Amino acid sequence: MSTHSIAFIGTGVMGRSMAGHLLQAGHTLHVHNRTKAKAQELLAAGATWHDTPGAAAAQADFVITIAGYPRDVEETYFGPQGVLAHARPGAVLIDMTTSSPELARRIAAAAPAHRCTALDAPVTGGDVGAREARLSIMVGGDEASFARARPLFERMGKIVVFQGGPGSGQLCKLANQIGIASVMMSWCEALSFAQRAGLDPARVLENIGGGAAGSVGMTVLAPRALRGDYAPGFYVKHFLKDLRLALEAAEVMKLDLPGTQTAKKLYDEVAARGWEDCGTQVLLRLYAERA
Amino acid sequence: MSTHSIAFIGTGVMGRSMAGHLLQAGHTLHVHNRTKAKAQELLAAGATWHDTPGAAAAQADFVITIAGYPRDVEETYFGPQGVLAHARPGAVLIDMTTSSPELARRIAAAAPAHRCTALDAPVTGGDVGAREARLSIMVGGDEASFARARPLFERMGKIVVFQGGPGSGQLCKLANQIGIASVMMSWCEALSFAQRAGLDPARVLENIGGGAAGSVGMTVLAPRALRGDYAPGFYVKHFLKDLRLALEAAEVMKLDLPGTQTAKKLYDEVAARGWEDCGTQVLLRLYAERA
Repeated sequence: MSTHSIAFIGTGVMGRSMAGHLLQAGHTLHVHNRTKAKAQELLAAGATWHDTPGAAAAQADFVITIAGYPRDVEETYFGPQGVLAHARPGAVLIDMTTSSPELARRIAAAAPAHRCTALDAPVTGGDVGAREARLSIMVGGDEASFARARPLFERMGKIVVFQGGPGSGQLCKLANQIGIASVMMSWCEALSFAQRAGLDPARVLENIGGGAAGSVGMTVLAPRALRGDYAPGFYVKHFLKDLRLALEAAEVMKLDLPGTQTAKKLYDEVAARGWEDCGTQVLLRLYAERA
Repeated sequence: MSTHSIAFIGTGVMGRSMAGHLLQAGHTLHVHNRTKAKAQELLAAGATWHDTPGAAAAQADFVITIAGYPRDVEETYFGPQGVLAHARPGAVLIDMTTSSPELARRIAAAAPAHRCTALDAPVTGGDVGAREARLSIMVGGDEASFARARPLFERMGKIVVFQGGPGSGQLCKLANQIGIASVMMSWCEALSFAQRAGLDPARVLENIGGGAAGSVGMTVLAPRALRGDYAPGFYVKHFLKDLRLALEAAEVMKLDLPGTQTAKKLYDEVAARGWEDCGTQVLLRLYAERA
């Protein structure tokens, strides 16, 4: 495999693991992060630090970004010290943040003026998937650039699928979050009902967990929620961001999503109770307390 | 294993397979069904026909019933030619229909006057699960009778769990149907969104089917719905019956189930379009046509 010079911007919980896999594969890594401390591990392993996104990008054939919110992505690409202003001609710019399809299209539209191409490539699989290189990566943008970037994606993920033109990766990710929304209600309502009826939820899970009501949420999150463990695998506040993006995109397409809307209202209630920094499984607690 | 004389009342798609497993295990089978033709296979294999539920029950240590609707169960147990009036003293009466917890409690309350005990033992797993003896069986009622009946359940199912007193099996089954309700919205909304956005749903499934949005519905039903195959694995009309039972039971317990209510409204729309005899996966079509 040929090795590349890669800029990796955003070395939080996800980015750190993902960048680590690229470093291990023998690529040269240029990193930047808002909080330098979170890049220490990568620097110790051989990555080079840069003080701005642009400075890191200037050294690279591939620029990978992964941030928290669309506004961070916007700053990272369009700011004066940003990626677009400083990237090399010929570079492939890859945003792996879960962000808006519209922003992905804006970056893709801006890239050619800098003689770059762009991909939007959000992921699912969480911190564990990132650590174990088992992410599912959904990619939109320029297909020839996808072909070039594919070996890098395959270092970070297990499932890598090209979804179509700019923004398609983000649209696929929003479809995923839409799917999660009703899955969360599914197991929370099944178990709330069981508990209210006086059944033992563990026995109920034994009977129904592997059947048509079964889901990853029921298998992985329900046991945590049942023992009162609301530690974040995935933050409520981030899920709400995703649901907002999804419902906005659906509205533009004039598509009614009653399940997702219902879930969004419930998570608004969750946030109103001050549980924004809990994991999404805290929804079970809402059902127990609200009715 | 000791063999028993078993009455099996209700030899439709599910009952036929389930009774077949008991016959194969060496038990003596007495059968009744509203439509005799549907019992032919079992009769050819050695079962004995009876013209009424009571006549079959009169020959048996265990009476198993599986019907379509709670009103059929009521008639089968409480009618003049029914199970209660004719069952032997000491018999265990087992209703495996998905029915109301309240009716299960009424049967259990009536049984002692006839020196019988009762179990409610609805199942999940569908026609395929019944055929392959891989059902999940959720049992409520008298625990000593459950211990006696357990070897029979284990011939018909793979997962057999005692859930508690009379009605608990039905409550667990309703929890299962509640779980299914939002799972159906989950994959239908994810794929409707993907299709409306111009993505290829098969590629989207590749990216998201194994992750946190994944479910049995997404894996098994989505591909059918996507190719316009609405053949019933599970009928819309039966699912609506179950959702009515579930929401009634939740109301009694003062538990609000917004997801299940939303799904119920959507399935009411499905029925209003005349798709009651389709499989539940026809919900995807509703999303495509309604917005």
